Amino acid sequence: MDAPSVIRTKRDRGELTDAQIDWVIDAYTKGEVADEQMSALAMAILLNGMNLREISRWTDAMIRSGVRMDWSALGMPTSDKHSTGGVGDKITLPLAPLVAACGASVPQLSGRGLGHTGGTLDKLESIPGWRALLSNDEMMSVLRSSGAVICAAGDGLAPADKKLYALRDVTGTVEAIPLIASSIMSKKIAEGTGALVLDVKVGSGAFMKNLADAQELARTMVGLGKAAGVNTVALLTDMSTPLGLTAGNALEVRESVEVLAGGGPADVVELTLALAREMLAAAGVHGKDPADALRDGSAMDHWRRMISAQGGDVDAPLPVAREQHVITAPASGILTGLDAYGVGVCAWRLGAGRARKEDPVQAGAGVEMHAKPGDTVVAGQPLLTLHTDTPERYDYAIEALEGAVTVSPAGTAFTPNPIVLDRIA
Amino acid sequence: MDAPSVIRTKRDRGELTDAQIDWVIDAYTKGEVADEQMSALAMAILLNGMNLREISRWTDAMIRSGVRMDWSALGMPTSDKHSTGGVGDKITLPLAPLVAACGASVPQLSGRGLGHTGGTLDKLESIPGWRALLSNDEMMSVLRSSGAVICAAGDGLAPADKKLYALRDVTGTVEAIPLIASSIMSKKIAEGTGALVLDVKVGSGAFMKNLADAQELARTMVGLGKAAGVNTVALLTDMSTPLGLTAGNALEVRESVEVLAGGGPADVVELTLALAREMLAAAGVHGKDPADALRDGSAMDHWRRMISAQGGDVDAPLPVAREQHVITAPASGILTGLDAYGVGVCAWRLGAGRARKEDPVQAGAGVEMHAKPGDTVVAGQPLLTLHTDTPERYDYAIEALEGAVTVSPAGTAFTPNPIVLDRIA
Repeated sequence: MDAPSVIRTKRDRGELTDAQIDWVIDAYTKGEVADEQMSALAMAILLNGMNLREISRWTDAMIRSGVRMDWSALGMPTSDKHSTGGVGDKITLPLAPLVAACGASVPQLSGRGLGHTGGTLDKLESIPGWRALLSNDEMMSVLRSSGAVICAAGDGLAPADKKLYALRDVTGTVEAIPLIASSIMSKKIAEGTGALVLDVKVGSGAFMKNLADAQELARTMVGLGKAAGVNTVALLTDMSTPLGLTAGNALEVRESVEVLAGGGPADVVELTLALAREMLAAAGVHGKDPADALRDGSAMDHWRRMISAQGGDVDAPLPVAREQHVITAPASGILTGLDAYGVGVCAWRLGAGRARKEDPVQAGAGVEMHAKPGDTVVAGQPLLTLHTDTPERYDYAIEALEGAVTVSPAGTAFTPNPIVLDRIA
Repeated sequence: MDAPSVIRTKRDRGELTDAQIDWVIDAYTKGEVADEQMSALAMAILLNGMNLREISRWTDAMIRSGVRMDWSALGMPTSDKHSTGGVGDKITLPLAPLVAACGASVPQLSGRGLGHTGGTLDKLESIPGWRALLSNDEMMSVLRSSGAVICAAGDGLAPADKKLYALRDVTGTVEAIPLIASSIMSKKIAEGTGALVLDVKVGSGAFMKNLADAQELARTMVGLGKAAGVNTVALLTDMSTPLGLTAGNALEVRESVEVLAGGGPADVVELTLALAREMLAAAGVHGKDPADALRDGSAMDHWRRMISAQGGDVDAPLPVAREQHVITAPASGILTGLDAYGVGVCAWRLGAGRARKEDPVQAGAGVEMHAKPGDTVVAGQPLLTLHTDTPERYDYAIEALEGAVTVSPAGTAFTPNPIVLDRIA
């Protein structure tokens, strides 16, 4: 077996055999297949595709490159959620303790943001003292005490994926459904969850810009999950406009806590509940309505225990950016467009996100929204508040909003997109 | 400008701009674009193609990555030939001194063999004392004294191509017409020849297995040459069976000297003369018939001067392999098939070629043929003699001949392929 022959198979539109896939993933993990060989193969896969058998074997080989975690000692059903990434997508924060409060354990390995979409770990790190890096024993201990844990994946989990993900980022080979699906699912299957709900985002602020691509990705991932014995369901959800009224790390933690306190923006609450119901059903846990757990304070209790168990000071004030800048409504009428991508890039440029993996993020930076699509606005009223520690970036950040805000004359018919667009099981 | 955006342009079937091409070649030469980025781009080019403008700019950028040689101080027309590589293709050896004897200078930068096709430098190095590495001053001096020089390209010539060629070899991205054409033409244009004749091989022993691909490659290269001011012509020639009666380094030198002495196999003589006439016409040199220069000894004189000027002992005996093994005709009848690829791989396995760039070759190893397609053979007569210093490889070498020899019943109608299949100017 040698790398050029594996590459040529896919280049010439052939099917990779199980033996070829196992060999190339193993040899790449060990450094025997070079980066320049793997990137050529990734480009051939991007352009010529893989069928479900190939994707499934590829995923399995990446899982076998490391350890597969096991939570059976908990004696509890486990359920997790993965989002393909969006703007203002803080859902994991209220969702994990909410599901824990309803009787399923949530062992979530999460990631950092790259580009215009935020990362769950970056958001939680804005809580003073909170630690993303836990040992397996610490994860088990947090799960036992609070029913949910959100932390970074260790080096032993799907190391082949870790290496390949970094490579794809610099070689223009990110946007391939077989590679996206196998990357996500190798980590989630290795994480050891018994049930999994995928939140596949669709729209300008998402990776998948149209419903058909998102459906294909969802179907592929659901197939991979089920083949690996993980009860997997996908919701396709709208990402044409940001979720909730905040995009940015500490800003989103604040909004998540509002949801856990029984308040918060309607769209965040709706999606949190929809995902919680799917996670519980997929894990076979019935009995408690998640809406009750938001009302009765039990979800908030689990949140406080989870954050404290990971070193976070739940009562400390959240970081606030040094400077604010208000953007007002350009006209009176109905806000018919507030583009997720524009707001995401704006928040990123304000300092909420990073351009390279090793860059730090600003805890307080981001965009606060004062209206959502469908709302009536009056010319001159505050529409957005931009937060940053580095006001010299305002001009660059505001450029990203060019064309992102649309105000239509009063009386214009406007129906916002539904939050949940489709369900694939 | 950044590598992922250039890669994405070609991945998404876009045209690369002149600025993108100039930047990526320059940055790759300097090491600012990484191997894994260039290999992803090469795969995207292989699968999505480049148009003639892109290929032309790509070639030009590779030439500009190094020096362009200049032979105007010679005060003579210059003409060169390049073959895309075949089995038994020793044509450069008699051709260069022959053309010099007819009044054009031949400044040829040549290569070594890789895989089943032989390399001109490997062949000449079987002559005791002969040196492939010359400085520019030495090249000029050999050209002045003997009218022709055949040597290795220095590091300063198209360094971008050198780097990219090594990368393509290990990443399954060799077989792309835009990359093959630009690789060949960047070196030949940088070499500074005024006229160029391309010998594009077609058939089992060639890189291009069918005429349509070879025609596309030839048209592309002729276009690139003309655009760079080099008067370029291509002959498409048959490589379904080996050229001449030998494949191997010293064996081919011996046959080349026979041609220069006025003898040699008919097909080698025919192709040498056809290419010599094209090279002279392309350089605007008229008057002497190359057939006369073979007969009157002037081509041989130029050969002896050229080899001596590069340190070779023209009178020393050529190396002979330690062991020989005769393969006999399996039946009586007409030899209707002697497959170039089979013979090439056999010679390579006997030690005439190398698997990796840094491997040595055996000067005496190779295959001697005692019959050509169309000849009548008698069961048990010697058909091939295998030469090697490492007889432990016989079994492996003979395996390559499986199905390569076809003897048909006497009376079977058989017309050998013409040597020259097409001409593109």
